[in-house]
Amino acid sequence: MNLHRDPLPIADAVDRIMANKKQGKTEKVAIEHCGGRSLAEDILATNPVPPFDKSPYDGFALRSQDTMGLTRKNPGTFHVTETVAAGHRASRPMEKGEAVRIMTGAEIPEGADCVAMFEICQTFEESGHSYMEIKRALEPNQNIIEKGSETEKGKRLVRAGALINPGVKALLATFGYSEVMVYQKPKVGVFATGTELLDVDEPLVPGKIRNSNAYMILAQIERAGAEGTYLGKLDDDFETCYHAVSGSLKDFDLVITTGGVSVGDYDLMPEIYEKLKAKVLFNKVAMRPGSVTTVAELDGQLLYGLSGNPSACYVGFELFAYPMIQSLIGNPAPFRPRIQAILGEDFKKPNPFSRFVRGKVSFKRGEVVVSPVGIDKSAVVTSLAAANAFIVLPGGTRGYEKGDTVEAILLEHEHGQKQLEEG
Amino acid sequence: MNLHRDPLPIADAVDRIMANKKQGKTEKVAIEHCGGRSLAEDILATNPVPPFDKSPYDGFALRSQDTMGLTRKNPGTFHVTETVAAGHRASRPMEKGEAVRIMTGAEIPEGADCVAMFEICQTFEESGHSYMEIKRALEPNQNIIEKGSETEKGKRLVRAGALINPGVKALLATFGYSEVMVYQKPKVGVFATGTELLDVDEPLVPGKIRNSNAYMILAQIERAGAEGTYLGKLDDDFETCYHAVSGSLKDFDLVITTGGVSVGDYDLMPEIYEKLKAKVLFNKVAMRPGSVTTVAELDGQLLYGLSGNPSACYVGFELFAYPMIQSLIGNPAPFRPRIQAILGEDFKKPNPFSRFVRGKVSFKRGEVVVSPVGIDKSAVVTSLAAANAFIVLPGGTRGYEKGDTVEAILLEHEHGQKQLEEG
Repeated sequence: MNLHRDPLPIADAVDRIMANKKQGKTEKVAIEHCGGRSLAEDILATNPVPPFDKSPYDGFALRSQDTMGLTRKNPGTFHVTETVAAGHRASRPMEKGEAVRIMTGAEIPEGADCVAMFEICQTFEESGHSYMEIKRALEPNQNIIEKGSETEKGKRLVRAGALINPGVKALLATFGYSEVMVYQKPKVGVFATGTELLDVDEPLVPGKIRNSNAYMILAQIERAGAEGTYLGKLDDDFETCYHAVSGSLKDFDLVITTGGVSVGDYDLMPEIYEKLKAKVLFNKVAMRPGSVTTVAELDGQLLYGLSGNPSACYVGFELFAYPMIQSLIGNPAPFRPRIQAILGEDFKKPNPFSRFVRGKVSFKRGEVVVSPVGIDKSAVVTSLAAANAFIVLPGGTRGYEKGDTVEAILLEHEHGQKQLEEG
Repeated sequence: MNLHRDPLPIADAVDRIMANKKQGKTEKVAIEHCGGRSLAEDILATNPVPPFDKSPYDGFALRSQDTMGLTRKNPGTFHVTETVAAGHRASRPMEKGEAVRIMTGAEIPEGADCVAMFEICQTFEESGHSYMEIKRALEPNQNIIEKGSETEKGKRLVRAGALINPGVKALLATFGYSEVMVYQKPKVGVFATGTELLDVDEPLVPGKIRNSNAYMILAQIERAGAEGTYLGKLDDDFETCYHAVSGSLKDFDLVITTGGVSVGDYDLMPEIYEKLKAKVLFNKVAMRPGSVTTVAELDGQLLYGLSGNPSACYVGFELFAYPMIQSLIGNPAPFRPRIQAILGEDFKKPNPFSRFVRGKVSFKRGEVVVSPVGIDKSAVVTSLAAANAFIVLPGGTRGYEKGDTVEAILLEHEHGQKQLEEG
């Protein structure tokens, strides 16, 4: 076996993957079940908002011309003809000298063009009739939310490819989208390879470790917006692996294996890609961890051979599988946000290759700070729990110092803070 | 009805709510179903990591003393006695002059104390025996990942209250947590009140609007880590509302209503709290939007009366219900992250009250920038879709200018970017 592989720059590896991107499938789902999904249609305003002139306050609807010249010394009295609650309409157009008691959100009666808040009105009863008095003039349109003032009918409010968050859901409901077209979640099959792997419920035995990569990757798949299926762990036996992998291809958009991509005697994935006649897009990337990450393509379908080392596996997924999944769910911005940040601690290791260090982003006085979390070796699993970002340290350097500007790739948002005010 | 209510400072309102916080309930769930849940137990290293001395590379395990003095001009030859794949063990301790072919992740054979990578070794066969040759000396422990070097047995790796992300899942699997104790999702019941409300699948009719708050709040509840149940929309009728609300209390940790908390004729919630003998913690907060937000307490249970205005409802939930939910799922940092940011655009409106403006956080050259999105009125629903933060503008000011330092409360992380590299 040829042990030499030429490392490919990361950007080229991503390009080779994204050259295989294709339109994801779509489906209609009920508004109740669309949370967190990716829109496959633009959301349009199917009616103006508000759909009628409405009152922003509880008060009295008036004709502003009736209030001209009113002052503390020259108050005006109006006959209160009816009450309009939200969801109801006035029974008839208003006439000179009349007031309509109106509730927040209710439709402005025909003829009225302003609302006086309760707080500036006096009310009284006389001979079985209701009256209100006001001591100031109102302008036309004062305290009126005009029909269409927020949104005109037909306006595009959210573009396809956006994630359905609580605000988008409010829009769907407002505009009568009881069902909405979303992208189907891409189906991703996951195998863990390696005779050393035990199931999570098995006791440790000498020479073996528990399979953590499959559970981790399944959680990454879910976080990325896809649907993962665990297809089991495979011993390092060629026939077993070959049949398992080849038999799974038709059921999934992507197939991910962990382990078996290095140059060891039992690293079977290269041979499996060969027998499948899959085209290896790359089998070595100029990065740490995860340099052995391999991606192959067969009839437009991608097979990801991620490293068996937990951190390398994690990084390989986020760099190479995440953007493909995002692309399949129609996100026009499929890459993880990559921002500049201030390095919070020294990182003195020299970098022959670009390094993705597990880090934690925090914010201090308007600055973005990122610091490494835990030990940084490709086999290290414990640092992943605390990471919400990768620190990107380009290769060919002698290390970095606290205060240097670096790039960070954001993976998750911060979970919370102890005090209401900034800590 | 007394129209006057004294506005309470936001921090005091939050204090009154959090004085009612209590221990959430817990449950055991399988590792497959714990993603996104909140840990109710600390995660301990149940074994050292790695659990044995192991090889980080494919290569040959050697006794370092056998390699002393080896150079290009004075190479050493070793008898390759066997191959140890990951998951297997050497058949016997190594002796002087022997090498064991070893794969990444495999256990170091007894007697060996270093590994030579394939890349620096020559191999050959002679008389039916395998040999390897090496032209340099190795140090003791060179290329050995020592047992326990990453984590000692018994170490606490993740504290209760942490969210189970892909990294935490990897730890659960590594340490044999096939089941894990998590906090139960708090149960939150939601009513929308208002005769003006139509269902999402009903056509618009004059004076009415579709119910968007319930769908929005249910999505916020889900995002906050709780389980929401929509209990229906209620007309503005006292008996209907009273029986619906009082009948729901026993089934939920929190009950949220939208609408009906202002001082209008059909704002029934104050009267309902009174008849329930619930203690109103506050019914006016010094903030915009959402000043009418009301929270009442009955036998330790909280009833949230959120505004019927979409943006006010949204803000009220995030400020007052979110930290209570986080607290019920054991998060020791239950508040939304609140950070300093640079205002990206002018916001010239004077602020008598503290204002929570829907905004979008972005990152530019290591700085956090936050800009308002869309129109900012409490009734405005369309700006919520694009918001990933609130801009906190304290009251008593004449407005803010681009470049001012402001506070931002983070709601969501950014969705992505178009290019692999920073845009």
